[in-house]
Amino acid sequence: MKVHVVGVIGAGRIGKLHIANMKNMHKVRVKTVSDPFIDQMQDWFINSCVENLTKDYKDIINDPEIKAVIICAPTDLHIPIIKEAAAAGKHIFCEKPISFSDEETIEAYETVQKAGVKFQLGFNRRFDRNFAKVKEIVANKEIGDLHILKIQSRDPEPPSLDYVAHSGGIFMDMSIHDFDMARYISGSEVEEVYATGTALVNPEISKYEDIDTAIITLKFANGAIGVIDNSRQAVYGYDQQLEAFGSKGSAKVNNETQSRVEVLTTDGVKSDNPLYFFLERYNDAYIAEMSQFFDAIENNTEVPCSFIDGIMAQRIAQAAKESLLTGKPVKVKKL
Amino acid sequence: MKVHVVGVIGAGRIGKLHIANMKNMHKVRVKTVSDPFIDQMQDWFINSCVENLTKDYKDIINDPEIKAVIICAPTDLHIPIIKEAAAAGKHIFCEKPISFSDEETIEAYETVQKAGVKFQLGFNRRFDRNFAKVKEIVANKEIGDLHILKIQSRDPEPPSLDYVAHSGGIFMDMSIHDFDMARYISGSEVEEVYATGTALVNPEISKYEDIDTAIITLKFANGAIGVIDNSRQAVYGYDQQLEAFGSKGSAKVNNETQSRVEVLTTDGVKSDNPLYFFLERYNDAYIAEMSQFFDAIENNTEVPCSFIDGIMAQRIAQAAKESLLTGKPVKVKKL
Amino acid sequence: MKVHVVGVIGAGRIGKLHIANMKNMHKVRVKTVSDPFIDQMQDWFINSCVENLTKDYKDIINDPEIKAVIICAPTDLHIPIIKEAAAAGKHIFCEKPISFSDEETIEAYETVQKAGVKFQLGFNRRFDRNFAKVKEIVANKEIGDLHILKIQSRDPEPPSLDYVAHSGGIFMDMSIHDFDMARYISGSEVEEVYATGTALVNPEISKYEDIDTAIITLKFANGAIGVIDNSRQAVYGYDQQLEAFGSKGSAKVNNETQSRVEVLTTDGVKSDNPLYFFLERYNDAYIAEMSQFFDAIENNTEVPCSFIDGIMAQRIAQAAKESLLTGKPVKVKKL
Amino acid sequence: MKVHVVGVIGAGRIGKLHIANMKNMHKVRVKTVSDPFIDQMQDWFINSCVENLTKDYKDIINDPEIKAVIICAPTDLHIPIIKEAAAAGKHIFCEKPISFSDEETIEAYETVQKAGVKFQLGFNRRFDRNFAKVKEIVANKEIGDLHILKIQSRDPEPPSLDYVAHSGGIFMDMSIHDFDMARYISGSEVEEVYATGTALVNPEISKYEDIDTAIITLKFANGAIGVIDNSRQAVYGYDQQLEAFGSKGSAKVNNETQSRVEVLTTDGVKSDNPLYFFLERYNDAYIAEMSQFFDAIENNTEVPCSFIDGIMAQRIAQAAKESLLTGKPVKVKKL
Repeated sequence: MKVHVVGVIGAGRIGKLHIANMKNMHKVRVKTVSDPFIDQMQDWFINSCVENLTKDYKDIINDPEIKAVIICAPTDLHIPIIKEAAAAGKHIFCEKPISFSDEETIEAYETVQKAGVKFQLGFNRRFDRNFAKVKEIVANKEIGDLHILKIQSRDPEPPSLDYVAHSGGIFMDMSIHDFDMARYISGSEVEEVYATGTALVNPEISKYEDIDTAIITLKFANGAIGVIDNSRQAVYGYDQQLEAFGSKGSAKVNNETQSRVEVLTTDGVKSDNPLYFFLERYNDAYIAEMSQFFDAIENNTEVPCSFIDGIMAQRIAQAAKESLLTGKPVKVKKL
Repeated sequence: MKVHVVGVIGAGRIGKLHIANMKNMHKVRVKTVSDPFIDQMQDWFINSCVENLTKDYKDIINDPEIKAVIICAPTDLHIPIIKEAAAAGKHIFCEKPISFSDEETIEAYETVQKAGVKFQLGFNRRFDRNFAKVKEIVANKEIGDLHILKIQSRDPEPPSLDYVAHSGGIFMDMSIHDFDMARYISGSEVEEVYATGTALVNPEISKYEDIDTAIITLKFANGAIGVIDNSRQAVYGYDQQLEAFGSKGSAKVNNETQSRVEVLTTDGVKSDNPLYFFLERYNDAYIAEMSQFFDAIENNTEVPCSFIDGIMAQRIAQAAKESLLTGKPVKVKKL
Repeated sequence: MKVHVVGVIGAGRIGKLHIANMKNMHKVRVKTVSDPFIDQMQDWFINSCVENLTKDYKDIINDPEIKAVIICAPTDLHIPIIKEAAAAGKHIFCEKPISFSDEETIEAYETVQKAGVKFQLGFNRRFDRNFAKVKEIVANKEIGDLHILKIQSRDPEPPSLDYVAHSGGIFMDMSIHDFDMARYISGSEVEEVYATGTALVNPEISKYEDIDTAIITLKFANGAIGVIDNSRQAVYGYDQQLEAFGSKGSAKVNNETQSRVEVLTTDGVKSDNPLYFFLERYNDAYIAEMSQFFDAIENNTEVPCSFIDGIMAQRIAQAAKESLLTGKPVKVKKL
Repeated sequence: MKVHVVGVIGAGRIGKLHIANMKNMHKVRVKTVSDPFIDQMQDWFINSCVENLTKDYKDIINDPEIKAVIICAPTDLHIPIIKEAAAAGKHIFCEKPISFSDEETIEAYETVQKAGVKFQLGFNRRFDRNFAKVKEIVANKEIGDLHILKIQSRDPEPPSLDYVAHSGGIFMDMSIHDFDMARYISGSEVEEVYATGTALVNPEISKYEDIDTAIITLKFANGAIGVIDNSRQAVYGYDQQLEAFGSKGSAKVNNETQSRVEVLTTDGVKSDNPLYFFLERYNDAYIAEMSQFFDAIENNTEVPCSFIDGIMAQRIAQAAKESLLTGKPVKVKKL
């Protein structure tokens, strides 16, 4: 059995999630994890099977035994790490977004291309069984031609204002997943965006020139139109729904719930809320995306979510931001 | 437009329901209503369009202009009224059950046969769009051969103990609708019954040698088996579900609800309970059964729910009662 | 029993619907129906209880016995009929939209005000039990403050191109119901609209400078945002859903269906599509709106859907049309 | 980290399932697997991490390093293996049923008691999140006192006739899970059973004095009544539903499905069938039961499903068999 020797850069919430998942993949060996705050996380690693801990990600870059890196560092560090890892010939799995700057992203893309390493972006929702099923239904024309794509995407609780300050804004941080879904399900590029939004969950967020409630209208290259609505706080849980409506019908993803139990009393019929947040909702999807990353390396095949997918989702986010600021629809920069 | 001149015998809850429904049928004229307590009901009739009120049902029997009678009197009066009405050449719509005695029922049946009048029994559920749809699915073999028939039938609140005393017992009063459903959906006779039951809603009911919670197993002539569960009190509303399970699939009737609204809060997802009771749940079915009764008279066609249907449902009820008393399965008396 | 003597102007699909409903209202007497094509409709009226048929609506206006008129004529005739009816002191129920011109509408409004007659607009959806329930939930703050209002409104089949030519366009003809719902549910005015749309169902519709697929973003005076999506053809039936999302939860109206039957076979679980179109879906709502119109006359109370409601919905439609033409968000004209 | 050294006896479908699950439990080391046909299964074990393969289960019994055995051998071998393993001081996880003989089961129970080893029975459904939730709702009296317990339990495809011949019959092989659920959910013993059944899926099964379609009525010690319906073939998938109905409401487990996708076309609304069979449906439950077995060993706590649970479920199965043969209700043998 071939074993992939892996380094993980950044051991925050998502980094730890990937480490826990890789622990159960018998063909993966997590050799080193780096994080500037690793000293404060020793406890977490006791049963983790990780061999080395370090504060300096360069220890990973410089380790010739490590063939693949998982980048879970803050977004503003992505570009240098990608470039160094690619230069060192390592395959790269990187969390979204690649960066906040289109120019830097393109530069990093070129470095990766030259190095000839695999690069997979962490748009985990592509690996959810529900969205994948609708993708297939749309691709097979079971609903005819796509006319309207609707995405309802709401978090159960807003991030801290500290997080907001470095998040790149709601479109780059949160809606970017929906922009990727729009491209993934439709099989088409988004050409124009109109965004409206406001701070209703927490007005304080305005101080960071950000919003927490948004509606974004999309025009696709294939003629379809779409709409995304986002909220930073759906108190009932992580609301992740999507509908593809076409000339021959409609395919809809409903929320996953904790159980299938219904309770009937004099108060009415009660059933479970959506699964609370991304860790619960996309648990299987996170495992699948990582597993397919290693498959792509092993078999030298295309990754299921590419650098280009990252670039295009970012450009839609940038157009949405501009639209919000100008109050007008904005064209998405083409490749 | 031909007009049906009608008399209603008995103006309790169900009698008033039929009167209200006939008021909106332009081809029906409710000439006379009889009830021993009619004096106390004057108010109700003010806007009812009924022409005459009387305490004596014979005023209806003896009125040659009246061509059809709707019998909503207490069960123990059904037999004499049916016989007199048939002898007077009037078409008859009668509420269930026909009587508590098989012998008397058969005698009345013969009188009706001789008179050559139409006789329709009030098994209203046959006229519900949901049950009718499943009946059709079963008849069309869309679920292949029927293997198991399940009926879940629960009232929202128990009747008064006074009512219980004259009800003929749960099987004759309540389950009889389910016995008819069993025959209607399966298209087969019930050959054997095993009943178990107890008084869980209100132990007082035991004083009347009755129960309020029951499970009844059925064996059908066509080889299928079935089960009915009954409760006199489902606090969440009138629970009226049914499933026909067969070699190629299953068809299920879910409850009708007041609205299609779902509310999601931190407490979970809440939707409406089943419609409260038979007046709400079978409103359309009551209208349809009466309308089809007049159609059968007008066109001289078969009624959709016959005297025989009433006899057979009663016999299943009698077998269930005997099974409960003896603790053994009991054969249903054949026609 | 007070009886309302009524004239109906226009006997097309919706006119006949109201006539059929009023036939079962015992306090309403439909004395006269006018329609230029009444000669070709004689058959329909045979069992309708309507007393007089005429080609000329002035026969209704000039009949002093008639106290209320139901205007179901084509939109371009609404203004003169409203004015004449009001001048003749008749109460008015009018189908939407009032007219295609804001100036004319305002003029008619003033005539009606002066005449002091009741005027109710035919926004039937307000009378649907589901939407009314969500309205109440929002008003009671059960979902906290409203953040996002979503309306999904799709017809099962497009109208003829002939109809399209005189419809005033999708926003005035179809979305106008959704604009009213937006105001009704939110309890707030719409301040700004951004519309995008295209001809995907039938490209021929472009010849009439119209579209058949639209997404419309709304900004409400109360700070909430909203989105409507429309299609002239949902092949699976009349899709009428709505969600009010707020700080404490969400309330959603799902589609009404023909039955509650589910069929499970090797092909999957199959249940019924939404009710086919407005006649099926809003049957009860049409009865309720008319009944409440007569109640308002009888008790001299406020009508449940006013002239102002008609004016404001039209202005949103006009803003949407301008937005589609200019590609920019447009402010809605205030009262 | 303490490591449990384990031997698995029997490597059929369920044995392999447990081996695959234990592979991902870092505190478990599967040292040896025995199966008479192990030679034909070499391929399966290549990536399984199992250290030794043997034809003779005594190699496991005699290995002092092995502290726990997982018994997945055919039922008729359970008793000797249990006795030998207990005598050798090994903790035991055993698949259901323990045996076909009440006397032998009791004997084995006494051996296990004397040896003081842990013994857990494989009633996997207790570990399903849905059933566990209803168990808790019933225990908390959220639905008041239990009145009726309904279990709908149907396999997607019948076993081979060869399997049937050695299965102990439908009640011992299949319904036994439902009998355990009845005790688990109700928190009460079953006192009396009445079973009816027939061979509708495959009449050939009658040759083995077995049936494939059954309805079983239960009387509980706590006064409640219950009913189970079983079929060896629900063509639409593994149907695993349950309802606990009580004085204050009802709690129902609906089926788990492959996805939450709904597709609407002119053919109606289509959604996914139940998960196909036990491997898919109870995947998480199988992991949880094994994990809790090792927890009980580690912490020396009570196992979540005991030898007594196995004995009582068997006795209900035996009573059901007798009821089917005699056509009468049968008392369940008390402990």
